[in-house]
Amino acid sequence: MPDIPFSIDLAFPTCIPHKYDRHLERRLSSMEGMFLDTQAFKELQSKGDSLMYEVYEIHRPEIPGELLSGISIVHPGKVGNEFFMTKGHFHSVLETAEIYYCLKGEGVMIMENPEGDTSIEPLVPGKILYVPPRWAHRSVCTGRQNDLVTFFIYPGNAGHDYGTIIKRGFRKLIVDSTDGYKSIDNPNWKTG
Amino acid sequence: MPDIPFSIDLAFPTCIPHKYDRHLERRLSSMEGMFLDTQAFKELQSKGDSLMYEVYEIHRPEIPGELLSGISIVHPGKVGNEFFMTKGHFHSVLETAEIYYCLKGEGVMIMENPEGDTSIEPLVPGKILYVPPRWAHRSVCTGRQNDLVTFFIYPGNAGHDYGTIIKRGFRKLIVDSTDGYKSIDNPNWKTG
Repeated sequence: MPDIPFSIDLAFPTCIPHKYDRHLERRLSSMEGMFLDTQAFKELQSKGDSLMYEVYEIHRPEIPGELLSGISIVHPGKVGNEFFMTKGHFHSVLETAEIYYCLKGEGVMIMENPEGDTSIEPLVPGKILYVPPRWAHRSVCTGRQNDLVTFFIYPGNAGHDYGTIIKRGFRKLIVDSTDGYKSIDNPNWKTG
Repeated sequence: MPDIPFSIDLAFPTCIPHKYDRHLERRLSSMEGMFLDTQAFKELQSKGDSLMYEVYEIHRPEIPGELLSGISIVHPGKVGNEFFMTKGHFHSVLETAEIYYCLKGEGVMIMENPEGDTSIEPLVPGKILYVPPRWAHRSVCTGRQNDLVTFFIYPGNAGHDYGTIIKRGFRKLIVDSTDGYKSIDNPNWKTG
Protein backbone atom coordinates (compact mmCIF):
# COMPACT_ATOMS: atom_id res chain seq x y z
CA MET A 1 0.00 0.00 0.00
CA PRO A 2 1.69 3.21 -1.13
CA ASP A 3 1.51 6.50 0.73
CA ILE A 4 -1.30 8.04 -1.31
CA PRO A 5 -2.40 11.64 -1.97
CA PHE A 6 -5.46 12.88 -0.10
CA SER A 7 -7.60 15.97 0.06
CA ILE A 8 -9.58 17.58 2.84
CA ASP A 9 -12.59 19.85 2.50
CA LEU A 10 -13.01 22.84 4.72
CA ALA A 11 -16.63 23.27 5.69
CA PHE A 12 -17.55 26.90 5.11
CA PRO A 13 -18.42 29.06 6.93
CA THR A 14 -16.79 27.37 9.95
CA CYS A 15 -13.70 26.12 8.04
CA ILE A 16 -13.56 23.04 10.27
CA PRO A 17 -11.94 20.26 8.19
CA HIS A 18 -14.20 17.32 7.32
CA LYS A 19 -11.42 15.00 8.49
CA TYR A 20 -8.38 15.52 10.67
CA ASP A 21 -6.06 13.50 12.88
CA ARG A 22 -6.21 15.41 16.13
CA HIS A 23 -8.38 18.12 17.66
CA LEU A 24 -6.73 20.19 20.38
CA GLU A 25 -8.70 22.45 22.69
CA ARG A 26 -6.88 25.07 24.74
CA ARG A 27 -8.82 26.52 27.62
CA LEU A 28 -8.12 29.44 29.94
CA SER A 29 -6.73 27.13 32.64
CA SER A 30 -3.92 25.94 30.36
CA MET A 31 -2.70 29.54 29.89
CA GLU A 32 -2.20 30.66 33.46
CA GLY A 33 0.57 33.26 33.75
CA MET A 34 0.44 34.17 30.06
CA PHE A 35 -1.82 37.24 30.40
CA LEU A 36 -0.73 40.50 31.98
CA ASP A 37 -3.83 41.11 34.11
CA THR A 38 -3.75 38.25 36.64
CA GLN A 39 -6.78 39.61 38.50
CA ALA A 40 -8.89 39.65 35.33
CA PHE A 41 -7.64 36.12 34.60
CA LYS A 42 -8.90 34.91 38.01
CA GLU A 43 -12.23 36.66 37.60
CA LEU A 44 -12.78 35.17 34.14
CA GLN A 45 -11.76 31.74 35.40
CA SER A 46 -14.29 31.96 38.23
CA LYS A 47 -17.01 32.12 35.55
CA GLY A 48 -15.85 28.90 33.87
CA ASP A 49 -12.92 27.52 31.91
CA SER A 50 -13.33 29.44 28.61
CA LEU A 51 -12.33 27.78 25.35
CA MET A 52 -9.62 30.05 23.99
CA TYR A 53 -8.45 28.30 20.83
CA GLU A 54 -8.65 25.05 18.90
CA VAL A 55 -6.38 23.30 16.43
CA TYR A 56 -7.35 20.64 13.89
CA GLU A 57 -4.17 18.84 12.89
CA ILE A 58 -3.58 16.99 9.62
CA HIS A 59 -0.83 14.69 10.72
CA ARG A 60 2.12 13.38 8.69
CA PRO A 61 5.48 11.86 9.64
CA GLU A 62 7.60 14.35 11.60
CA ILE A 63 10.60 14.17 9.29
CA PRO A 64 12.38 16.52 6.84
CA GLY A 65 10.65 16.75 3.43
CA GLU A 66 7.20 16.31 4.97
CA LEU A 67 4.75 19.13 5.68
CA LEU A 68 2.52 19.39 8.74
CA SER A 69 -0.65 21.42 8.40
CA GLY A 70 -3.95 22.21 10.01
CA ILE A 71 -6.54 24.76 10.95
CA SER A 72 -6.20 27.09 13.94
CA ILE A 73 -9.30 28.77 15.40
CA VAL A 74 -8.83 31.50 18.01
CA HIS A 75 -12.11 32.52 19.62
CA PRO A 76 -13.04 36.13 20.38
CA GLY A 77 -12.65 37.35 23.94
CA LYS A 78 -10.40 39.26 26.31
CA VAL A 79 -8.57 38.75 29.59
CA GLY A 80 -8.66 42.26 31.00
CA ASN A 81 -7.56 44.41 28.09
CA GLU A 82 -5.68 41.61 26.29
CA PHE A 83 -7.25 39.61 23.49
CA PHE A 84 -7.58 35.81 23.43
CA MET A 85 -4.50 34.28 21.81
CA THR A 86 -2.50 31.10 21.33
CA LYS A 87 0.35 30.04 23.63
CA GLY A 88 2.85 30.74 20.87
CA HIS A 89 6.10 28.92 20.30
CA PHE A 90 9.48 28.73 18.65
CA HIS A 91 10.17 25.68 16.51
CA SER A 92 12.46 23.14 18.20
CA VAL A 93 14.49 23.13 14.99
CA LEU A 94 14.88 26.90 15.06
CA GLU A 95 15.85 27.20 11.37
CA THR A 96 12.39 26.22 10.08
CA ALA A 97 9.73 28.52 8.61
CA GLU A 98 5.93 28.51 8.76
CA ILE A 99 3.24 29.86 6.44
CA TYR A 100 -0.23 30.98 7.49
CA TYR A 101 -3.14 31.65 5.18
CA CYS A 102 -5.96 33.61 6.83
CA LEU A 103 -9.38 32.15 6.02
CA LYS A 104 -11.69 34.13 8.28
CA GLY A 105 -11.89 36.78 10.97
CA GLU A 106 -9.38 39.37 12.00
CA GLY A 107 -6.31 39.30 14.15
CA VAL A 108 -2.58 39.70 14.29
CA MET A 109 0.50 37.50 14.51
CA ILE A 110 2.99 38.54 17.19
CA MET A 111 6.51 37.42 16.32
CA GLU A 112 10.02 37.76 17.71
CA ASN A 113 13.41 36.19 17.16
CA PRO A 114 16.14 35.32 19.70
CA GLU A 115 18.08 38.44 18.62
CA GLY A 116 15.28 40.62 20.03
CA ASP A 117 13.64 41.76 16.78
CA THR A 118 9.85 41.91 16.91
CA SER A 119 7.14 42.00 14.26
CA ILE A 120 3.36 42.31 14.32
CA GLU A 121 1.46 41.45 11.14
CA PRO A 122 -2.29 41.93 10.69
CA LEU A 123 -4.30 38.90 9.58
CA VAL A 124 -7.40 39.29 7.43
CA PRO A 125 -8.98 36.82 5.00
CA GLY A 126 -6.87 36.31 1.87
CA LYS A 127 -3.60 37.19 3.56
CA ILE A 128 -0.57 34.93 3.27
CA LEU A 129 1.85 35.38 6.19
CA TYR A 130 5.43 34.17 6.00
CA VAL A 131 7.11 33.45 9.35
CA PRO A 132 10.83 33.08 8.58
CA PRO A 133 13.06 30.55 10.34
CA ARG A 134 14.03 31.62 13.91
CA TRP A 135 10.81 33.57 14.68
CA ALA A 136 8.45 32.61 17.53
CA HIS A 137 4.80 33.25 16.64
CA ARG A 138 1.50 33.69 18.46
CA SER A 139 -1.92 34.38 16.86
CA VAL A 140 -4.28 36.87 18.48
CA CYS A 141 -7.99 37.25 17.67
CA THR A 142 -8.83 40.96 17.62
CA GLY A 143 -12.37 40.51 16.31
CA ARG A 144 -15.16 41.26 18.76
CA GLN A 145 -17.61 38.70 17.43
CA ASN A 146 -15.84 36.30 15.11
CA ASP A 147 -13.22 33.58 15.30
CA LEU A 148 -9.81 34.11 13.73
CA VAL A 149 -9.33 31.09 11.42
CA THR A 150 -6.01 30.31 9.74
CA PHE A 151 -4.56 27.43 7.73
CA PHE A 152 -0.93 26.74 8.73
CA ILE A 153 1.89 24.73 7.17
CA TYR A 154 5.35 23.99 8.56
CA PRO A 155 8.17 21.54 7.83
CA GLY A 156 7.68 18.01 9.19
CA ASN A 157 10.80 18.12 11.38
CA ALA A 158 10.17 21.59 12.93
CA GLY A 159 8.83 20.53 16.34
CA HIS A 160 7.49 22.90 19.02
CA ASP A 161 9.38 24.71 21.74
CA TYR A 162 6.67 26.11 24.04
CA GLY A 163 8.98 26.29 27.08
CA THR A 164 10.94 29.39 26.07
CA ILE A 165 7.73 31.44 25.71
CA ILE A 166 6.22 30.04 28.93
CA LYS A 167 9.38 31.15 30.76
CA ARG A 168 9.93 34.55 29.10
CA GLY A 169 6.66 35.60 27.47
CA PHE A 170 6.59 37.60 24.24
CA ARG A 171 8.19 41.07 24.16
CA LYS A 172 4.99 42.59 22.78
CA LEU A 173 1.36 42.29 23.88
CA ILE A 174 -1.79 43.11 21.89
CA VAL A 175 -4.43 45.02 23.82
CA ASP A 176 -7.79 46.59 23.09
CA SER A 177 -7.83 50.21 21.95
CA THR A 178 -10.22 52.66 20.37
CA ASP A 179 -8.52 51.97 16.99
CA GLY A 180 -9.25 48.24 17.27
CA TYR A 181 -6.03 47.06 18.90
CA LYS A 182 -2.58 48.29 19.80
CA SER A 183 0.77 46.76 20.62
CA ILE A 184 2.49 47.49 23.94
CA ASP A 185 5.76 46.37 25.51
CA ASN A 186 5.33 43.44 27.88
CA PRO A 187 6.45 44.68 31.32
CA ASN A 188 6.84 41.06 32.47
CA TRP A 189 9.12 39.99 29.62
CA LYS A 190 12.13 38.12 30.98
CA THR A 191 15.61 37.87 29.50
CA GLY A 192 17.54 34.57 29.33
CA MET B 1 19.01 43.68 9.09
CA PRO B 2 17.27 40.50 10.24
CA ASP B 3 15.25 38.26 7.96
CA ILE B 4 11.83 39.68 8.82
CA PRO B 5 8.28 38.28 8.61
CA PHE B 6 6.11 39.54 5.76
CA SER B 7 2.59 39.15 4.52
CA ILE B 8 1.05 39.21 1.07
CA ASP B 9 -2.52 40.08 0.17
CA LEU B 10 -4.34 38.14 -2.48
CA ALA B 11 -6.49 40.48 -4.55
CA PHE B 12 -9.94 38.94 -4.77
CA PRO B 13 -11.54 37.94 -7.07
CA THR B 14 -8.42 37.35 -9.20
CA CYS B 15 -6.23 36.11 -6.27
CA ILE B 16 -3.16 37.65 -7.91
CA PRO B 17 -0.74 38.50 -5.06
CA HIS B 18 -0.10 42.21 -4.51
CA LYS B 19 3.62 41.43 -4.42
CA TYR B 20 5.67 38.49 -5.65
CA ASP B 21 9.20 37.73 -6.76
CA ARG B 22 8.64 36.15 -10.14
CA HIS B 23 5.79 35.85 -12.61
CA LEU B 24 6.02 32.89 -15.00
CA GLU B 25 3.84 32.59 -18.08
CA ARG B 26 3.54 29.25 -19.84
CA ARG B 27 2.18 29.36 -23.35
CA LEU B 28 1.08 26.64 -25.75
CA SER B 29 4.46 26.68 -27.56
CA SER B 30 6.29 25.66 -24.37
CA MET B 31 4.17 22.49 -24.09
CA GLU B 32 4.68 20.89 -27.47
CA GLY B 33 4.44 17.09 -27.29
CA MET B 34 2.54 17.14 -23.97
CA PHE B 35 -0.98 16.83 -25.40
CA LEU B 36 -2.33 13.68 -27.05
CA ASP B 37 -3.95 15.32 -30.07
CA THR B 38 -1.00 16.73 -32.01
CA GLN B 39 -3.22 17.88 -34.89
CA ALA B 40 -5.44 19.91 -32.53
CA PHE B 41 -2.28 21.33 -30.96
CA LYS B 42 -1.06 22.56 -34.38
CA GLU B 43 -4.44 24.02 -35.26
CA LEU B 44 -4.68 25.88 -31.94
CA GLN B 45 -1.12 27.13 -32.34
CA SER B 46 -1.92 28.49 -35.80
CA LYS B 47 -4.43 30.83 -34.12
CA GLY B 48 -1.84 32.25 -31.71
CA ASP B 49 0.32 31.21 -28.78
CA SER B 50 -2.36 30.76 -26.06
CA LEU B 51 -1.50 31.53 -22.45
CA MET B 52 -2.04 28.22 -20.68
CA TYR B 53 -0.98 28.92 -17.08
CA GLU B 54 0.77 31.42 -14.87
CA VAL B 55 2.68 31.20 -11.61
CA TYR B 56 3.37 33.99 -9.12
CA GLU B 57 6.28 32.89 -6.95
CA ILE B 58 7.03 34.09 -3.43
CA HIS B 59 10.71 33.32 -3.31
CA ARG B 60 12.80 32.25 -0.33
CA PRO B 61 16.21 30.55 -0.01
CA GLU B 62 16.15 27.09 -1.57
CA ILE B 63 17.35 25.26 1.54
CA PRO B 64 15.88 22.77 4.05
CA GLY B 65 13.68 24.40 6.71
CA GLU B 66 12.46 27.08 4.28
CA LEU B 67 9.10 27.01 2.49
CA LEU B 68 8.52 28.08 -1.11
CA SER B 69 5.05 29.22 -2.04
CA GLY B 70 3.00 30.98 -4.67
CA ILE B 71 -0.16 31.16 -6.70
CA SER B 72 -0.82 28.98 -9.74
CA ILE B 73 -3.45 30.04 -12.29
CA VAL B 74 -4.45 27.55 -15.00
CA HIS B 75 -6.66 29.14 -17.65
CA PRO B 76 -9.69 27.43 -19.16
CA GLY B 77 -9.32 25.84 -22.58
CA LYS B 78 -8.73 22.58 -24.43
CA VAL B 79 -6.30 21.06 -26.90
CA GLY B 80 -8.56 18.67 -28.76
CA ASN B 81 -10.41 16.87 -25.99
CA GLU B 82 -7.76 17.52 -23.31
CA PHE B 83 -8.01 20.40 -20.86
CA PHE B 84 -5.35 23.08 -20.36
CA MET B 85 -2.88 21.97 -17.69
CA THR B 86 0.55 22.57 -16.18
CA LYS B 87 3.69 20.78 -17.34
CA GLY B 88 3.79 18.83 -14.10
CA HIS B 89 6.90 17.62 -12.32
CA PHE B 90 8.52 15.42 -9.71
CA HIS B 91 10.58 17.17 -7.05
CA SER B 92 14.34 16.84 -7.60
CA VAL B 93 14.58 15.78 -3.95
CA LEU B 94 11.98 13.05 -4.44
CA GLU B 95 11.21 12.65 -0.71
CA THR B 96 9.55 16.07 -0.39
CA ALA B 97 5.82 16.80 -0.13
CA GLU B 98 3.64 19.66 -1.42
CA ILE B 99 0.37 21.16 -0.22
CA TYR B 100 -2.20 22.91 -2.41
CA TYR B 101 -5.10 25.00 -1.21
CA CYS B 102 -7.72 25.63 -3.88
CA LEU B 103 -8.87 29.27 -3.95
CA LYS B 104 -11.02 29.42 -7.06
CA GLY B 105 -12.34 27.49 -10.04
CA GLU B 106 -12.52 23.77 -10.62
CA GLY B 107 -10.02 21.21 -11.72
CA VAL B 108 -8.09 18.11 -10.79
CA MET B 109 -4.58 17.19 -9.75
CA ILE B 110 -3.11 14.25 -11.69
CA MET B 111 -0.46 12.44 -9.63
CA GLU B 112 1.77 9.38 -9.95
CA ASN B 113 4.75 7.90 -8.19
CA PRO B 114 7.76 6.04 -9.64
CA GLU B 115 6.23 2.74 -8.50
CA GLY B 116 3.36 3.24 -10.98
CA ASP B 117 0.57 4.20 -8.56
CA THR B 118 -1.73 6.96 -9.84
CA SER B 119 -4.17 9.32 -8.17
CA ILE B 120 -6.59 11.95 -9.40
CA GLU B 121 -8.01 14.40 -6.86
CA PRO B 122 -10.70 16.99 -7.62
CA LEU B 123 -9.92 20.60 -6.75
CA VAL B 124 -12.67 23.00 -5.70
CA PRO B 125 -12.46 26.12 -3.53
CA GLY B 126 -11.77 25.30 0.13
CA LYS B 127 -10.02 22.02 -0.61
CA ILE B 128 -6.63 21.23 0.89
CA LEU B 129 -4.69 18.71 -1.20
CA TYR B 130 -1.74 16.81 0.23
CA VAL B 131 0.79 15.52 -2.32
CA PRO B 132 3.01 13.07 -0.43
CA PRO B 133 6.76 12.75 -1.05
CA ARG B 134 7.57 10.82 -4.29
CA TRP B 135 4.45 11.89 -6.25
CA ALA B 136 4.65 13.88 -9.52
CA HIS B 137 1.79 16.35 -9.86
CA ARG B 138 0.05 18.30 -12.65
CA SER B 139 -2.94 20.67 -12.26
CA VAL B 140 -5.70 20.62 -14.85
CA CYS B 141 -8.40 23.29 -15.25
CA THR B 142 -11.70 21.54 -16.00
CA GLY B 143 -13.82 24.69 -15.74
CA ARG B 144 -15.30 25.97 -19.02
CA GLN B 145 -15.20 29.65 -18.13
CA ASN B 146 -13.04 30.18 -15.05
CA ASP B 147 -9.41 29.92 -14.05
CA LEU B 148 -8.28 27.24 -11.61
CA VAL B 149 -6.41 29.13 -8.88
CA THR B 150 -4.39 27.37 -6.18
CA PHE B 151 -1.97 28.40 -3.43
CA PHE B 152 0.96 25.98 -3.19
CA ILE B 153 3.66 25.36 -0.58
CA TYR B 154 6.66 23.03 -0.75
CA PRO B 155 9.93 22.58 1.13
CA GLY B 156 12.72 25.01 0.21
CA ASN B 157 15.11 22.29 -0.93
CA ALA B 158 12.59 20.31 -3.08
CA GLY B 159 13.63 21.52 -6.55
CA HIS B 160 11.87 20.62 -9.82
CA ASP B 161 12.42 17.64 -12.08
CA TYR B 162 10.46 18.46 -15.27
CA GLY B 163 12.60 16.18 -17.46
CA THR B 164 11.09 12.86 -16.38
CA ILE B 165 7.57 14.02 -17.29
CA ILE B 166 8.71 15.59 -20.59
CA LYS B 167 10.28 12.23 -21.53
CA ARG B 168 7.54 9.89 -20.26
CA GLY B 169 4.35 11.89 -19.87
CA PHE B 170 1.84 11.12 -17.12
CA ARG B 171 0.12 7.71 -17.05
CA LYS B 172 -3.30 9.35 -16.94
CA LEU B 173 -4.88 12.12 -19.02
CA ILE B 174 -7.92 14.25 -18.20
CA VAL B 175 -10.33 14.74 -21.10
CA ASP B 176 -13.70 16.37 -21.64
CA SER B 177 -16.80 14.24 -21.07
CA THR B 178 -20.52 14.69 -20.65
CA ASP B 179 -20.01 14.34 -16.86
CA GLY B 180 -17.55 17.24 -16.81
CA TYR B 181 -14.29 15.33 -17.21
CA LYS B 182 -12.93 11.82 -17.20
CA SER B 183 -9.56 10.16 -16.76
CA ILE B 184 -8.11 7.92 -19.48
CA ASP B 185 -4.89 5.94 -19.83
CA ASN B 186 -2.21 7.81 -21.77
CA PRO B 187 -1.46 5.67 -24.85
CA ASN B 188 1.84 7.55 -25.30
CA TRP B 189 3.13 6.92 -21.78
CA LYS B 190 6.70 5.65 -21.91
CA THR B 191 8.49 3.40 -19.42
CA GLY B 192 12.05 4.09 -18.26
